[in-house]
Amino acid sequence: MKRGRIFHNGAIHEVTPADAGRVRLPDGRLLFEADCHWLPPVQVGTVFALGLNYADHARELAFQAPEAPLVFLKGPNTVVGHRARTRRPADATYMHYECELAVVIGQTCKHVAKADALGVVAGYSVANDYAIRDYLENYYRPNLRVKNRDGCTPLGPWLVDAVDVPDPMALKLTTRINGRTTQEGTTADMVFDIATLIAYLSSFMTLNPGDVILTGTPEGLADTRPGDVVETEIEGIGCLVNHIVDDARYFQP
Amino acid sequence: MKRGRIFHNGAIHEVTPADAGRVRLPDGRLLFEADCHWLPPVQVGTVFALGLNYADHARELAFQAPEAPLVFLKGPNTVVGHRARTRRPADATYMHYECELAVVIGQTCKHVAKADALGVVAGYSVANDYAIRDYLENYYRPNLRVKNRDGCTPLGPWLVDAVDVPDPMALKLTTRINGRTTQEGTTADMVFDIATLIAYLSSFMTLNPGDVILTGTPEGLADTRPGDVVETEIEGIGCLVNHIVDDARYFQP
Repeated sequence: MKRGRIFHNGAIHEVTPADAGRVRLPDGRLLFEADCHWLPPVQVGTVFALGLNYADHARELAFQAPEAPLVFLKGPNTVVGHRARTRRPADATYMHYECELAVVIGQTCKHVAKADALGVVAGYSVANDYAIRDYLENYYRPNLRVKNRDGCTPLGPWLVDAVDVPDPMALKLTTRINGRTTQEGTTADMVFDIATLIAYLSSFMTLNPGDVILTGTPEGLADTRPGDVVETEIEGIGCLVNHIVDDARYFQP
Repeated sequence: MKRGRIFHNGAIHEVTPADAGRVRLPDGRLLFEADCHWLPPVQVGTVFALGLNYADHARELAFQAPEAPLVFLKGPNTVVGHRARTRRPADATYMHYECELAVVIGQTCKHVAKADALGVVAGYSVANDYAIRDYLENYYRPNLRVKNRDGCTPLGPWLVDAVDVPDPMALKLTTRINGRTTQEGTTADMVFDIATLIAYLSSFMTLNPGDVILTGTPEGLADTRPGDVVETEIEGIGCLVNHIVDDARYFQP
């Protein structure tokens, strides 16, 4: 089952996909999905994000793939829903999208064995983990200004139940800018697979329902500019649409 | 005013300091503070932590002080209250305390000017930002396993209202292990002061009430071992007590 969340008539509602570009409210009403005010499909807890988790992407950035998972945290302010606007600051030189499979944890767990790891997953979604590369120069690489900015992690539109994703390690990822395909890959190419990541993180951190793991992106970076419509799509999970805007548009009332 | 939070008789209560080692419940009852079950004094939002924000501490770790604030995030699972137990994993070689002034944000704000920055502070507390140095070897320095572990950020006992801290940049910090002083410093030695940090972070992230900035630690590292009682104290803010335990003690029912 696929579930999204929208703001509608003063409240938050769960919606499911319907035909002809529409979504269905729990009372049966149908709305056009392009007209909805989307929230992220889950209220996120801790957001873990992987750096360089596809070997081809690491090469693209001129890094070696790491020997252990390279994980950092993203603040809750960064997460926005489907069809939201993301700001490109006027002083940015490179603002790259990153199409990523988002793994949503479904139960409180600690010390999860790799063989049991997919059992703690509630479901999957699509994330766009924008990076402003300008700020990566710092030797200590805290990744804060690169990745932690208001609205720089679109997530959605759907949470797809884990039971409906028989093999999350064989899903095609695609990014399009203004309809032109700029990134293609498959989750099969992750350096550390989902089960390994859950076993690793839960070895020193308790994971909780709503925690999200952004599993990294394959090669195919491109700069995004104000006015661009960026679609990040994962086979069977969904197509997440995001609009890049400039400072003036973002901050206008 | 100083305010703490304790678990008592099935609920969470706010307490204030009283005489003779006691705290006062809102209904006037007095409890011995050493017998209380303490929670962190605030329900934390985003937790920002500074690396190498005292020049003497940076030298101690053989790093140069950074040219821009070196900030990373800590997950909510890491935060525990006064008198809690923190685990030292059996395979750790160095587990260092870090006595730090914690700045608690009091209002939603963005693009705060340095001159206005102290005005968005709700109050101050004491944090112990434990670090397991073993895991710092990674070139990318994501600081995840070093700093993000269940219970590795004791916080408390009190939130002290900002109005009662006339100069947060002139407070003495002290750490004692089993009663012996091992770390002394002053917030006057921060590389980036509190106002600069708030201006910096709010330039790209919205800050919200309950967000916490851990402002870094001066020199004076020492290894901590199971059985140690670690006291981190900041002049006028409070004395935070923490107990180091081994894996067996931590995981026992």
